[in-house]
Amino acid sequence: MSRDSLKLAIIGGGSSYTPELVEGVLKRLTSLPVKQIHFVDIEEGKEKLDIIYGLAKRMIAKVGADIEVTADCDRRAAIKGADFVMTQFRVGGLAARANDEKIPLKYDVIGQETTGPGGFAKALRTIPVILDICRDIEELSPNAWMLNFTNPAGLVSEAVNKYTKVKNIGLCNVPVSMQMMIADMMDCQPNEVQLEFAGLNHLVWVHKAWLNGEDITHTVLEKVGDGANFSMKNIWEEPWDPTFLKALNAIPCPYHRYFYQTDAMLAEEKLSAAEKGTRAEQVMQTESELFELYQQPSLDHKPSQLEERGGAYYSDASLNLVDAIYNNRNSLHVVNVPNNGAINGLPDDAVIECTAVVGSWGAKPLAVGELSPNVKGLLHQVKAYEQLTIEAAVHGSYEQGLMALANNPLVPDIGRAKSIFDEILQQNRHYLPQFTLTHL
Amino acid sequence: MSRDSLKLAIIGGGSSYTPELVEGVLKRLTSLPVKQIHFVDIEEGKEKLDIIYGLAKRMIAKVGADIEVTADCDRRAAIKGADFVMTQFRVGGLAARANDEKIPLKYDVIGQETTGPGGFAKALRTIPVILDICRDIEELSPNAWMLNFTNPAGLVSEAVNKYTKVKNIGLCNVPVSMQMMIADMMDCQPNEVQLEFAGLNHLVWVHKAWLNGEDITHTVLEKVGDGANFSMKNIWEEPWDPTFLKALNAIPCPYHRYFYQTDAMLAEEKLSAAEKGTRAEQVMQTESELFELYQQPSLDHKPSQLEERGGAYYSDASLNLVDAIYNNRNSLHVVNVPNNGAINGLPDDAVIECTAVVGSWGAKPLAVGELSPNVKGLLHQVKAYEQLTIEAAVHGSYEQGLMALANNPLVPDIGRAKSIFDEILQQNRHYLPQFTLTHL
Amino acid sequence: MSRDSLKLAIIGGGSSYTPELVEGVLKRLTSLPVKQIHFVDIEEGKEKLDIIYGLAKRMIAKVGADIEVTADCDRRAAIKGADFVMTQFRVGGLAARANDEKIPLKYDVIGQETTGPGGFAKALRTIPVILDICRDIEELSPNAWMLNFTNPAGLVSEAVNKYTKVKNIGLCNVPVSMQMMIADMMDCQPNEVQLEFAGLNHLVWVHKAWLNGEDITHTVLEKVGDGANFSMKNIWEEPWDPTFLKALNAIPCPYHRYFYQTDAMLAEEKLSAAEKGTRAEQVMQTESELFELYQQPSLDHKPSQLEERGGAYYSDASLNLVDAIYNNRNSLHVVNVPNNGAINGLPDDAVIECTAVVGSWGAKPLAVGELSPNVKGLLHQVKAYEQLTIEAAVHGSYEQGLMALANNPLVPDIGRAKSIFDEILQQNRHYLPQFTLTHL
Amino acid sequence: MSRDSLKLAIIGGGSSYTPELVEGVLKRLTSLPVKQIHFVDIEEGKEKLDIIYGLAKRMIAKVGADIEVTADCDRRAAIKGADFVMTQFRVGGLAARANDEKIPLKYDVIGQETTGPGGFAKALRTIPVILDICRDIEELSPNAWMLNFTNPAGLVSEAVNKYTKVKNIGLCNVPVSMQMMIADMMDCQPNEVQLEFAGLNHLVWVHKAWLNGEDITHTVLEKVGDGANFSMKNIWEEPWDPTFLKALNAIPCPYHRYFYQTDAMLAEEKLSAAEKGTRAEQVMQTESELFELYQQPSLDHKPSQLEERGGAYYSDASLNLVDAIYNNRNSLHVVNVPNNGAINGLPDDAVIECTAVVGSWGAKPLAVGELSPNVKGLLHQVKAYEQLTIEAAVHGSYEQGLMALANNPLVPDIGRAKSIFDEILQQNRHYLPQFTLTHL
Repeated sequence: MSRDSLKLAIIGGGSSYTPELVEGVLKRLTSLPVKQIHFVDIEEGKEKLDIIYGLAKRMIAKVGADIEVTADCDRRAAIKGADFVMTQFRVGGLAARANDEKIPLKYDVIGQETTGPGGFAKALRTIPVILDICRDIEELSPNAWMLNFTNPAGLVSEAVNKYTKVKNIGLCNVPVSMQMMIADMMDCQPNEVQLEFAGLNHLVWVHKAWLNGEDITHTVLEKVGDGANFSMKNIWEEPWDPTFLKALNAIPCPYHRYFYQTDAMLAEEKLSAAEKGTRAEQVMQTESELFELYQQPSLDHKPSQLEERGGAYYSDASLNLVDAIYNNRNSLHVVNVPNNGAINGLPDDAVIECTAVVGSWGAKPLAVGELSPNVKGLLHQVKAYEQLTIEAAVHGSYEQGLMALANNPLVPDIGRAKSIFDEILQQNRHYLPQFTLTHL
Repeated sequence: MSRDSLKLAIIGGGSSYTPELVEGVLKRLTSLPVKQIHFVDIEEGKEKLDIIYGLAKRMIAKVGADIEVTADCDRRAAIKGADFVMTQFRVGGLAARANDEKIPLKYDVIGQETTGPGGFAKALRTIPVILDICRDIEELSPNAWMLNFTNPAGLVSEAVNKYTKVKNIGLCNVPVSMQMMIADMMDCQPNEVQLEFAGLNHLVWVHKAWLNGEDITHTVLEKVGDGANFSMKNIWEEPWDPTFLKALNAIPCPYHRYFYQTDAMLAEEKLSAAEKGTRAEQVMQTESELFELYQQPSLDHKPSQLEERGGAYYSDASLNLVDAIYNNRNSLHVVNVPNNGAINGLPDDAVIECTAVVGSWGAKPLAVGELSPNVKGLLHQVKAYEQLTIEAAVHGSYEQGLMALANNPLVPDIGRAKSIFDEILQQNRHYLPQFTLTHL
Repeated sequence: MSRDSLKLAIIGGGSSYTPELVEGVLKRLTSLPVKQIHFVDIEEGKEKLDIIYGLAKRMIAKVGADIEVTADCDRRAAIKGADFVMTQFRVGGLAARANDEKIPLKYDVIGQETTGPGGFAKALRTIPVILDICRDIEELSPNAWMLNFTNPAGLVSEAVNKYTKVKNIGLCNVPVSMQMMIADMMDCQPNEVQLEFAGLNHLVWVHKAWLNGEDITHTVLEKVGDGANFSMKNIWEEPWDPTFLKALNAIPCPYHRYFYQTDAMLAEEKLSAAEKGTRAEQVMQTESELFELYQQPSLDHKPSQLEERGGAYYSDASLNLVDAIYNNRNSLHVVNVPNNGAINGLPDDAVIECTAVVGSWGAKPLAVGELSPNVKGLLHQVKAYEQLTIEAAVHGSYEQGLMALANNPLVPDIGRAKSIFDEILQQNRHYLPQFTLTHL
Repeated sequence: MSRDSLKLAIIGGGSSYTPELVEGVLKRLTSLPVKQIHFVDIEEGKEKLDIIYGLAKRMIAKVGADIEVTADCDRRAAIKGADFVMTQFRVGGLAARANDEKIPLKYDVIGQETTGPGGFAKALRTIPVILDICRDIEELSPNAWMLNFTNPAGLVSEAVNKYTKVKNIGLCNVPVSMQMMIADMMDCQPNEVQLEFAGLNHLVWVHKAWLNGEDITHTVLEKVGDGANFSMKNIWEEPWDPTFLKALNAIPCPYHRYFYQTDAMLAEEKLSAAEKGTRAEQVMQTESELFELYQQPSLDHKPSQLEERGGAYYSDASLNLVDAIYNNRNSLHVVNVPNNGAINGLPDDAVIECTAVVGSWGAKPLAVGELSPNVKGLLHQVKAYEQLTIEAAVHGSYEQGLMALANNPLVPDIGRAKSIFDEILQQNRHYLPQFTLTHL
């Protein structure tokens, strides 16, 4: 890594989140000498990319930073010479996401972007593309770090780690949000609470929490049970049953509602979809408004409206990682990396989400050993689903895809698994060339 | 073990299955020198016990065997001096089972005697009783073998192995039935097919099947998919999807229908319960007819009607175990014993159902190593449920009970888990003294 | 496998042990329809091979068996159509073995054919040859079973399992001899004692022994400590310390003397080598006498002198395996097969020596779970040595070879490891083309 | 933990190292509000303790710190109210150590304070005493942290973790010294190199080293092979063979010389013992000179002569731990803590030495996953020795003690193991009341 100038390549640069990332870079200029940012996107995203480019230029100009910005569709040029490749693209866009959310609902199954059949469909579309990007990195910038926050981030990172040589860390804004909300509950600073995170992306638990050396796990669970804010903007905040939380004896993440409170979450999804359209359809509206805003020539900073979208802290989390690696901080971050023994009973190459030390040597997970039987079953069930999904995505295997869905705990029956899978294949056929659709 | 005379203690001797056991003993007189059988039951079962006693005496007299029969409520006398203690009792009788089947159905959850919430309730009632029996064995016949076919047999055996020193093997008629049905499909003798069984009781798969050294797994799966008979008398024979079977790449047991084909099984259960009452209610009728038959003074053999009940091969399976131990056969049986490394990733003390060599040294499971991701998730999920159920049953812990049900893959939501658990506790309160019912 | 005629290919047919194998075939004609035996050897062994051929023909003629015998150097012809390929060759012959025994002694290190640096040298010579044979089997008889009793049998079998697709079982006469000697001590038949064998080839322990269901481990250890016969003809019978045996709480194999009683064994080796030459040199004399005998035209049976050689029961053990596979006996044998979870903590692909069920589906090891800390350290140390030796042999890696010897517990120092390794490479250079000898 | 005043209890306060500890406290007054130090020692050490007390008072007075110092034999008073209990005692003193070094040499076995039979003897004497101290901590200061640098630190920490509830971290100055020497080689600051430490105390390897994100493992190994300083003051600096280091592919610790270069180390020990007495005898002289110095009324700082002793960085390492815990630094330290999955294949409760994050939540080891076969054998062998030694020390079991020594890789033969063990028991009989000496 060069010691005095850094190049960032942003794959999916036309995302509405990008202004937050630019802001993050500008906030860290003293510690991170970013000199080049190359935003790249596909042809269909060219218009948005241009808007982002304009806004980024104005934001940089405002603070007078010495950063060269490029925005085009030349992915290989973006990757060449990059120190960090950040991926935040969405294959098929929000229209594909809307399908991911709608199809399962027809079968009375949770329809959600990253978990359940929706996350499965997204993984099938995304994995071939990210592996393709990795081939470029292997060739053009083999020492670059890929920071992946393309969902489903755990699955995608595991695919990258299993099928490429790229140095990769997966990232999510859920753990950092949990840390902030727990600090709020305890009326302290986020860095004062210590949280033993371990699980999978969007299925991560805090197994134990400390403040000043004292175990505060039960206190936090009581506060969550009493209704303390503990959700993400994009997830319905179904209240938690205090008795259940006490029995669980671990702090669930907001996404666990889909697995534990399936009935209520499904009911809300169906109601909401009927009234307001699915989440994707709502987001389309928000995005459209955001890009309207972004192209105003007078706008030269991240607008506050962006924070409404639910992806808060993403750019902070990712630029903190860049900082930890570049400046060798050996600081603690919650990341998606190969298990390597951190959680007993999972394979070494299974990507988990856990607390890790991050420095110029990469991310080293903290060992948590044996997890409680309270959580092990669900962990293994979802990991099996993930492993099978990766194989299905890479090899275009109908059988592994069907087994993946059959193993997903949100899909209660193989009949529904098959119907949903067939409809996913049908609706996504342009994005799933790896599958031969003779099954349909 | 004495070399020339054997004593069997039959706990739950008043069961309608007992004539089959007596027949099994009489068929094996040349290899098994059984000289005493002590049937024992509780006061409430005295009437049935007396009927069984009379029939057993007539059956023995018919063949002129030299076997002393006792039938009473003195469990300690039965156990004292016994070489084998066979347990086949049902705490709460068929009335409790009817509740087990009905309560979950109210919540659109599978209501079944041994899996799901029904099996959970049965385990809570049964485990304290079996541990109590084990205390007697530890004191009075520490070298006796307990052969347990009280359901849920895997859970019960794990409790015995974790909490007592009794030499115990759990037993089920499902694997032996599967072997027979597969032999039928392949048009060969049962001992010619070789089946790698591994899983949990009522959740066991054949991971690979051989005939004459050739892998016949796919052939069997095709035949099952084509509708070959592959069910038990007491389980609705919902047809299997051939595509799913091919993808699973392992032969499921009939009980797997509840986990894989949940929708159809639930629909059938609800319909059947509405039309004919639950399975328990149907069995009550069968039992009543059987005992009517048993008390006919002219009856001196096992009546063919018994075979209608779905417990076929139980006595064969159990007496074959007695034979393998007593005569040191080192023959292969599918049993419920501690894992001891046989399946990678499960604890050594987790009881599994697997192929084992059985001789006078006990049952030694065959190592199967790493199972496929196709089956690992469900295996871990159900094992977590089992571990938590045992702890709940032994310690009367509401929290562990709730976590057990929350981990059961047939219970899709913690809200329903809690409602079902509370109703189970309420309805079974006479059988669950270990729980303080302040939760209700 | 054909059901009415069997072909055996014997690689290294010119071995002096072969008459025992022929005798074994002739004893089993009713259960094993052997119709062809193809003995194969290398050019240098042609003379011995011809002698064996003549004796085999006379032995077969004597009993009037219908077996076609071939003996030549055409390995591919031998393998083609074979049902069982049995390997019993020795790369470099007894002269190479003499070197294996002598080199370590110069450095005050045990010089032994199969353990320590001697076994290491033998593995380096043998593994490339056996992999070459396996390529032929993969091409010409992919369904054949290879029964390997070429030493070091565990190492060689692990190489075959890791680097080929051949169905392979490794075999040794030590366990069957131990079973016979233990039966002798207990005054019973060999099949009456039950022995839980688990470890590595020539490093196997009986962790628990039973007779009639009773644990006799301590009784056996006491008898061994009191001087009961418990050795092999080819191993110096240094008496065991009863205190040590009691502390070990497991029955060691005769070869364990090299590891536990290193001082005495080394002293004896040095004395014996000075007085009588190394074991290989003594065997050359025996062999020469045997072949003298074998070529007598009047000899038409296995001469009793063969039993003096220390390889007793080899052919019985191997033909019993053939019988178990062909006739699907599901009987217990002690074999060298991949661990597959049988011993906790070793990789699934590490070949172990353990009790296994053998039938037409192959050999299925019995799970033994967690071994005692008394034996685990040595087990892991020797397994690490074995893994490194295999990699060194396959890849001709000097570094892995050096690490292998440095990990061998009989080599107390890396300086001596290096000197011994360099001398092994020098002396065996004609047999080790995989190594580039620039290190020398 | 109180937030504004800290109490340290120093068990073995009369150690000649104590001035370094006092200096360390005084250097950290701004970050660590130490208000009380209670030195405690046994009656026999009273004279030294008084000298230390005087020096400590003068050192504190010199800087005008507000710290109350106590020095007496009242261990319970010292522990009561302590925030940190630091243990640095030596049961039997240097005279016992001299025996530990001499006895093995008689049998041509390495005689060393912490490894081999010498460390074994020290563990047998130390473990009962430390468990006794822990009983006091459990009763009087259950929230205190014990920082143990009593050797053999890994073994002692494992005993504490297995047999008590005390919060304990074991500590050694070897890793921090290695980090400093490696930084010297690379011409950078110690915190710039990143070292993946994992192994056991005095048997720890750096599996991979990084500088600025680049793998420098081979560079370091080359420099060590070329003779870069890489030893401790108290270990003979036998040169490493560059070929071996390259093959090992991991950076050994200085103590590894005893295991890898046994011949040369033994030869040096014998020569040195003959010429200058054992290391203990040399230290006695150094100590005597140090205490002479310490009692000079004019001395009010740590004298430079102390650094000659070989225990450099101990107090820095331990006070850095205090700082990390008290100030919740989440900084990296190399410590002795339960494995908890960090190294694959070792039990969770096996204490390992590894890089860990330390903060107010304690020490969390970094997962390293699967270690190379180059090191796994020795690791398991020594861990088996350690586990057996702990059991022998706690239960006074002759058999487990004998098995411990038989498993120690520095003891090449069970005959010598027994002779050495018997002599250790004889010579240490006053310190080993847990053993009944009927064996002698």
